[in-house]
Amino acid sequence: MTTDPVRLARVALAYMFEPGNFDLALELDERGPVDAVTRVCSGDAAAPLVEIATQRLAGRDPYDIVAELLERTERVGARIVTPEDDEWPPQLEDLRRVSRPGGSRVDRDVFPPLCIWARGGPSLADMARRSVAVVGARASTPYGNHVATELAYGLAERGWCVVSGGAYGIDAQAHRGALTAGGCTVVVLACGIDRAYPMAHASLFERVIEDGLLVSEWPPGADPHRHRFLIRNRVIAAMTRGTVVVEASARSGARQTAGRAQLLGRPTMAVPGPVTSAMSVGAHQILRGIGARLVTNAAEVIEEVGQIGDDLAPLVHGRERDRDRLGPTLNQVLDGVPSRRSAGAETVAANAGLSLRIVLRSLPALVELGFVTRDDVGWRLAPTRRAA
Amino acid sequence: MTTDPVRLARVALAYMFEPGNFDLALELDERGPVDAVTRVCSGDAAAPLVEIATQRLAGRDPYDIVAELLERTERVGARIVTPEDDEWPPQLEDLRRVSRPGGSRVDRDVFPPLCIWARGGPSLADMARRSVAVVGARASTPYGNHVATELAYGLAERGWCVVSGGAYGIDAQAHRGALTAGGCTVVVLACGIDRAYPMAHASLFERVIEDGLLVSEWPPGADPHRHRFLIRNRVIAAMTRGTVVVEASARSGARQTAGRAQLLGRPTMAVPGPVTSAMSVGAHQILRGIGARLVTNAAEVIEEVGQIGDDLAPLVHGRERDRDRLGPTLNQVLDGVPSRRSAGAETVAANAGLSLRIVLRSLPALVELGFVTRDDVGWRLAPTRRAA
Repeated sequence: MTTDPVRLARVALAYMFEPGNFDLALELDERGPVDAVTRVCSGDAAAPLVEIATQRLAGRDPYDIVAELLERTERVGARIVTPEDDEWPPQLEDLRRVSRPGGSRVDRDVFPPLCIWARGGPSLADMARRSVAVVGARASTPYGNHVATELAYGLAERGWCVVSGGAYGIDAQAHRGALTAGGCTVVVLACGIDRAYPMAHASLFERVIEDGLLVSEWPPGADPHRHRFLIRNRVIAAMTRGTVVVEASARSGARQTAGRAQLLGRPTMAVPGPVTSAMSVGAHQILRGIGARLVTNAAEVIEEVGQIGDDLAPLVHGRERDRDRLGPTLNQVLDGVPSRRSAGAETVAANAGLSLRIVLRSLPALVELGFVTRDDVGWRLAPTRRAA
Repeated sequence: MTTDPVRLARVALAYMFEPGNFDLALELDERGPVDAVTRVCSGDAAAPLVEIATQRLAGRDPYDIVAELLERTERVGARIVTPEDDEWPPQLEDLRRVSRPGGSRVDRDVFPPLCIWARGGPSLADMARRSVAVVGARASTPYGNHVATELAYGLAERGWCVVSGGAYGIDAQAHRGALTAGGCTVVVLACGIDRAYPMAHASLFERVIEDGLLVSEWPPGADPHRHRFLIRNRVIAAMTRGTVVVEASARSGARQTAGRAQLLGRPTMAVPGPVTSAMSVGAHQILRGIGARLVTNAAEVIEEVGQIGDDLAPLVHGRERDRDRLGPTLNQVLDGVPSRRSAGAETVAANAGLSLRIVLRSLPALVELGFVTRDDVGWRLAPTRRAA
């Protein structure tokens, strides 16, 4: 069992505080996990933190609780992954950028997990690197179930990992579709990893950990409180390359996940459905917003998220970053990007003889592909491109 | 019966040439209709025009044919509307802007009609001023029929005129929905106004002209040739404030109408459907393109097209153009628009503290509403706004 003090402190804090806590993030940034535990227990940290810690510990030593949690973790065959581990998905740190201090608790408390409990063989970072979130309604329709299954099957078939919650409806269908294709899935729970919630999915979860992962940022034993699902959604959005909403009602948690993905700059997609279906209202609301993309199958999803994943490897080789791999439009946009001084999108559009809309749609892809860099002024060719 | 030489010449040319003809448009711009008739008949005009005219007239005097056509027009209770008439919808002239000389004939020959045959009481310009095109598949599904009917009903109920073709499926359902709500519709035919095509819609067309209009740019007797439907679509797109596609297959004429509307700068909308339905593939393709908006009901359609129509009247009054009528986002964007020198969208976005996407989405509306003017450099407050 681990004796690393940082790891033990993270587990202690994960026990005491709900994930994403804004005040705790400030404390951690300033003092680190070990000091943070000492300070919240001794009353030296910010009052709200001390109050929560006192109540939660009820007079016990936090490290006694940690010892119990580690035992429980081992007993269910799980491990604890922390930001200090190679297995930690670095993209989770993007969550630091999107906290909105003025907003509601759900908008403010979106900091990265303190640590993640994981069950299953693969590395969490490996799974996340080439993953798509497929989320949607619990009360899904047969249409939604069909689409979620097909979509996840298609993603898995093309080597993409499907990430979702563990709920009835779209979540479960997405996992099933991916597993049927022989792919991997990650179930992100909103309760302790030793709790099968909902119970009816116990065997699905067992199946998931054969090839994929069951993960949670809550310690073993944690209950699936209602508010935890919304907090959990930020991890699904941040861990993946993009989020697809399959079916969602007007007030759906899936919409929140999509909104979070969009704040994080991840491609946000939704599958349309009949306008006569209440279960497609949320998906259509997403698509009526700015920046979300309508998708109808796995290939279209990969078109949105693929450039990043597919080009992670080529970035190392260099040669494959050849312009020939870009389509005619991206090439034309690239022609409009200056090599020395950065220029705004309008200048690029004028240079390239293309509409501003097309240019704005293309530049992020060119940045992702390493052809273009962005700064405060605008865009210019990436240094390596100029050398090429 | 008319003896106005320009009107007679327009009818003669409408008999000789398919609408939208690029070469004829050049000839007309240079010489006007009367001289154009003389020149194509005497062999002085461009060779392709002379060739078509010779073949079409087969030795007859064009004005003899015109006399026959005027008689036929009167016999079926129709009238001829020309650009010289008050009843001519001025927005049809926008078609001049979108001809693509390098493209196919369908892309090149998109000039405004020479004249329009109309049956029915209302003024064509009045009908067009507050109108929406509702177009879609002939082989529509029950879902599409339901949506088209509901949509047209909702538009008519709110005082909007529905414009469509006369085909089976979505076209017919749109007209029926509008008529059921006691509204007006315009059927734009791709054949002579004395031909009920398809025959099964003869009584629908009779019903339409009780409150609305049956129109065509082809002279009486013209057959509904297949290519004429694509030529006709430009009139539907140009005459209306925006185009909604309800159901469309992958290769649908409705997609072409939507594309034309987009080229014309008109709001282009599509109603989504199940991704499992072949009849929604075209609608989804439109929505995956840049600039089209997903709509699920009449209110959302009016939200897209309404600002123009609703504000045509207030523009005269001035007072109603008050900023209070703008939503918070438009107001924020307006705050970022400079009053003296024009600035690019990026500057406006920086001034307003908003994303470039939102700014680009909002500026056209502010221009339409008369708050902002656009020039080569970018945007600035409209003169009247500065005075206010």
